[in-house]
Parts: sequence; structure tokens; C-alpha cells
Amino acid sequence: KHILVIPGDGIGPEVTTWGKAVLEKIGQDFGHEFTFDEALMGHAGIEATGNPLPDETLEKAKASDAILFGAIGHIKYDNDPSAKVRPEQGLLKIRKELGLYANLRPIMLFDELLDASSLKPEILKGTDILFFRELTGDVYFGEKKRSEDRNTASDLMIYSRYEVERIAIKAYEAARVRGKRLCSVDKANVLEASRLWREVVQEIAKQYPDVETEHMFIDNAAMQLVKNPKKFDVVLTANLFGDILTDEASQIAGSMGMLASASVGDGTGFFEPIHGSAHDIAGQDKANPLASILSVALMLEISFGLKEEAKKITDAIDKALKDGYRTGDIADANTDKAKILGTTAMG
Amino acid sequence: KHILVIPGDGIGPEVTTWGKAVLEKIGQDFGHEFTFDEALMGHAGIEATGNPLPDETLEKAKASDAILFGAIGHIKYDNDPSAKVRPEQGLLKIRKELGLYANLRPIMLFDELLDASSLKPEILKGTDILFFRELTGDVYFGEKKRSEDRNTASDLMIYSRYEVERIAIKAYEAARVRGKRLCSVDKANVLEASRLWREVVQEIAKQYPDVETEHMFIDNAAMQLVKNPKKFDVVLTANLFGDILTDEASQIAGSMGMLASASVGDGTGFFEPIHGSAHDIAGQDKANPLASILSVALMLEISFGLKEEAKKITDAIDKALKDGYRTGDIADANTDKAKILGTTAMG
Ligand SMILES: CC(C)[C@H](C(=O)O)[C@@H](O)C(=O)O
Ligand SMILES: CC(C)[C@H](C(=O)O)[C@@H](O)C(=O)O
Repeated sequence: KHILVIPGDGIGPEVTTWGKAVLEKIGQDFGHEFTFDEALMGHAGIEATGNPLPDETLEKAKASDAILFGAIGHIKYDNDPSAKVRPEQGLLKIRKELGLYANLRPIMLFDELLDASSLKPEILKGTDILFFRELTGDVYFGEKKRSEDRNTASDLMIYSRYEVERIAIKAYEAARVRGKRLCSVDKANVLEASRLWREVVQEIAKQYPDVETEHMFIDNAAMQLVKNPKKFDVVLTANLFGDILTDEASQIAGSMGMLASASVGDGTGFFEPIHGSAHDIAGQDKANPLASILSVALMLEISFGLKEEAKKITDAIDKALKDGYRTGDIADANTDKAKILGTTAMG
Repeated sequence: KHILVIPGDGIGPEVTTWGKAVLEKIGQDFGHEFTFDEALMGHAGIEATGNPLPDETLEKAKASDAILFGAIGHIKYDNDPSAKVRPEQGLLKIRKELGLYANLRPIMLFDELLDASSLKPEILKGTDILFFRELTGDVYFGEKKRSEDRNTASDLMIYSRYEVERIAIKAYEAARVRGKRLCSVDKANVLEASRLWREVVQEIAKQYPDVETEHMFIDNAAMQLVKNPKKFDVVLTANLFGDILTDEASQIAGSMGMLASASVGDGTGFFEPIHGSAHDIAGQDKANPLASILSVALMLEISFGLKEEAKKITDAIDKALKDGYRTGDIADANTDKAKILGTTAMG
């Protein structure tokens, strides 16, 4: 299998280094041959070529069997709302070009980290959520406009039936082999795009009578996720709402540094941590590489069907945590100081 | 002062009954004369007149000095995404017609209720956030479209400079007399409307050098709110993001049943709990009336400048809680069963 590594910005290069290293080790141990290439995206792409998604990167991406991505973004653009070229455009464009319409974000809890969350352990324990976030539609990709006097700005929130159908089917298929419960999140009491979303999900639901369907408004979902995260099994939602809910859920899981995501659809799968580029700690050997390593586990399972190999990775992480090892972001007052590791040591 | 009570749907009538009763008592005790009228909105409006905001209600609203509102919504419409007339249209229309562009949602914690939250008490303690949610713009009011074949649906997310300016100024004025920190939440790395939002807030910020400004992406804000709610003072955000964040924050505060909101702008102020119509418990004397009563405290303070009167209300609630009284939503395993009260007894 040929893997394209796209380190991206900030802590991206540090964490993908360890994702890649783990993949090489798995290859050796199980006798698989993984070959690697590397490419630029985001701020790194802009610096080198002026383009957040250089043509070469897109070609390499299309030619690979799976992509391991790091992180994107740079504070420079965040503070300059009028910048025309932005790192994030690279990520949005590759999602669209590769047809990565389904973003899977499993919220899994390592028992050892229950105390790292701001939620009470008894509220958390047993939480196991799989988010299906639509990834190539919504207000992310609808037409953007700025009036000539620059005083009015707009983005079109838009969905078409087939876009909702295809991700709903993926989510229901997953629910069927999990807890058989699916919660679809929208804002159908206000938004027309959400009303279409709800209509389509109601239709698809009929094909899955064995799965219990619930429809929830986004405001309520944002609340319920904190109140009682255990009540969720599969959560299906649109691009923008999914962006918000999964970040919120990451904190429930104790740390963003522990969560991986898989983007799949028409072609090559794309695997990345859900954390961002964290420029404030970049290059300091402080970043938690576990989300990148867990992204590799997701790649093995989802793109290559290698379940045993994936389990070897999650077991190894579990053991490191049980042995008391932590990176700074998941350490707490009770952590043995000597066991707080940098990126390299944890990797 | 002339108060229009709009009970609305579900538990709305039960809770506004007690908001009104408290206002009458304050009038007696302090020698103010409050006169009252009542009007229909939402499902109640549709049932009686076919219109979620009957003309008569709007006229009465414009003629009043303040409005006490209950709740809106009915499950019947939630499950029927193609319904043309919907209760929520009444609420959206009255917000627009009265120019209620600023929705203030204070997240205040009663010490007695620290344990009712799913967050750890040490994370919560000291949290005191004031949200400024923009209320008459955004994807809520932008053009809605459905294609003729009904297979594509859209909503326009749109902001103009003056809409951002006027709420930003209100938020900065409040920050100045509070903790002098303001966090503006947007998604400027993806949305053009957010980039305008950020530009305008950056400009207004210059007029408030004594207030520390931070810009945060909505996904990160949804996460930080759970991770470390204490870090927020004033939060300024758009209509949709504000809807999501304030509901999320309500859980942080222990219960939605304890939170009030004030909508202000060009004319008459509008005061309501942030909870919904909760049809599942409507008419059963189970709803928590405290958010409606706290809405009255906000009304006294914000619309009439009656601080002492407002404090009398919050002190009385504090005392009831200290004495161990709870409604079901804020009771926990340690609550004395005999002190779990219904709506009437708590009111
Ligand atoms: C970087 C940004 C464009 C992106 C998004 O909003 O999709 C990120 O937040 C994510 O969730 O992958
Ligand atoms: C009922 C609904 C239209 C409303 C909104 O989304 O604004 C409610 O959730 C609120 O927050 O007041």
C-alpha cells in the first residue's frame, strides 16, 4: 500500500512523524509493505508554491491508497480576515476533490483518562459515540459573496438530496453494527436546508427499521452532549454542526490530543487527528502524537480492513496510559512527573 | 409600566404565571404599578388564528413597556419538516419586528447548584459569563429557497456591517463594566460572513482599549466552554453560533431551567427563559418556574433600571435553594425528597 503523508502546519510534522513510524513498525511486524511519499498543504503549501493545495499534492493524493494528514492553519491568517489565500482552503479543496463526503469521528474513552475530562467520571463512563459529519457540502462550500462596498458578506448554506442520502446510508450501516441508535442533528425549526436534511433522513430511516432514529435540534444536541454523553451512539449531522459538536465532544473525551478522524467517500481515504495546528507549541516536542497514531489505526481498519493490526495500536496506547505515561495535555495533578513525556518519547 | 405576557406553548403558560405573580408582588412591596395584558404566539397563535404571530399580539407588543414571554414550539411541527406554518416563525418575526437585535444570556451559577452540573465543581466554580447573541440576522433571516423538484434547499448566512457594529458596541460596553474581557466567536477561517464579523469587531475593539479582545473559532469555543468555562467573561457571537453556545453553556450552569434571557434593541425589551416548550412535562406542575422569575429580574434591571427590586428576586431564589428546595430538574440524589417541589409550590 502506498501512503501519502501530508504533514501540513504547526505541530502537523511532529505528529505525523510518529504516525508514519508506527505504520512502518506495523508493516515490519505483520509483513505488510507500506511505501511512503510526502507532500505540502496549507501554510506550508502557500510558503513553497503560493497555493494551499499545490497541484502536485493533489496528484499524489489521487495516486495513493491512503493519506495521513497532520494539521492546518496559521495564526497569521486568523488575524487577517481579508487575506485572499488561506491555509484552510487547501484542506477544503482536497476534501472536495477526493469526494471525502463522510467524516467519521469516534469519541472513545481510555479508562485511564476519565479524570482528564472536565466532566464528572460517572457522567462519562461508558461513552462511545461515532460521529458522521458530512464534509463536502453545507455553508462550507456554498457560494460566498462580499458586496462591492465590502459592507455585506454572505455564505450559502445548501444541501441536495443525494448529499444527505449517501452519508445517511453510511451512518445507518454503522449504527446497525453498533448500538442500533442514530441521532440526526439539525435545525429544522429554522433552516430550510435542515428541513430537507430531516426529510431525507426520515426516508432512509425506513430502510433501517432495526435502528432507532431520533431527530434533535443542534442547540439541544450541544447541551445533551455535556449533560449525558452516554445517550448517544451514532450521531449524523451536517458539515458545520459536525465541526462544532465533534470539537465539543473531544473535550468530553478528555483531550483533543487523543482523537482521530477518517474522511471517506468516493476514493482514497484521508486520516487525521481532530486537533489543530497548535502553533503555540509547535517545534517544542510538546504535542501529543497519539491522535496521529490513532489515525493510523483508523486507516488500517477502514481503508485496508486490517483489524488485528489496528487493535495492536490501540492496545499499545492503552498499555502506555496504564503504565502512567502522559503527554502534557492529558497529564493531571496525580500524574508522576517523571512520566510526563514529550512527543518523541511518547511516539 | 405596562407588561405584555405572552405565555406561548407547552410549559410557557405555567412558568409565566409565576413570573407575573412575582412581578405583582414586587409592585406591591415597592409601590410600583404594573398593569398586564396577555397575547398569543406560536402554536397557541396558530390554533386560535392560523398565525404564529397574530397582528393583535404584535400591536400589543409594540404598545407595551416590556414583554414577558414563556416558550415556543410543538412536537407536531418538528416531525413534519414540510409544514409551511410553524410556531417558531412567530418568535423570529417578533424579534425582527421589534428590532430585538441583542440577546443577552447571563450564565450565572447558584452555589447550591454546583453539583447539579455534569461538570466537576472545581471546573465550574467562579464561572460568570454574559453572552451577547446577535438575534435578527444570520442564516435565521437570510433568504430561504427550495428547488422546484424539492431536492435542493438553502438558507443564506448574511451579515451587514451595521448589524455587527451595534451588537459589538453593546457587548463592549458591558465588558467594560464587568471583567473587561471580550471573546468574539466566529468561523472566519471558512465563512465570509465571519470574516466581515471579525473585521468589524477588530475595528470596534480599538475604541475599547481597556477591554481585552480575543477571537475564537466556534469549534474551539464549543470545546473551551466545557474545558474551562471560567476563562470567559463577555462572549459576543452571531445568531446561529449563539443559539448553540448558550444552550451548551446552560448545561454548564446545571440546568436550563435556571437561565433567563433578555432581548433588547430598538424598542420594547423582551424577556424569556432560555428553555423550550418541553411538551413532555407540560400541564403536569413539573416545570421549573425559576427561569421565568429570573426573566422578570432581568426585566426590572434592564428595562426599568430597578436594581434593588431585581436583587430582591435573585436573593429570594438563592434563599429557596439554600433552604434545600428544588424542582425535579435541579434535584439530585442528595436532595431531601420532601423538598422536591412542583411549579406552583416553587413559584
Ligand atoms: C481547519 C478547518 C477548516 C476545519 C473545519 O472546519 O472543517 C477543522 O476545524 C476541522 O474540523 O477539520
Ligand atoms: C425556538 C428557536 C427558533 C429559538 C432559536 O433558535 O433562536 C430558540 O432555540 C432560542 O434559542 O431562542
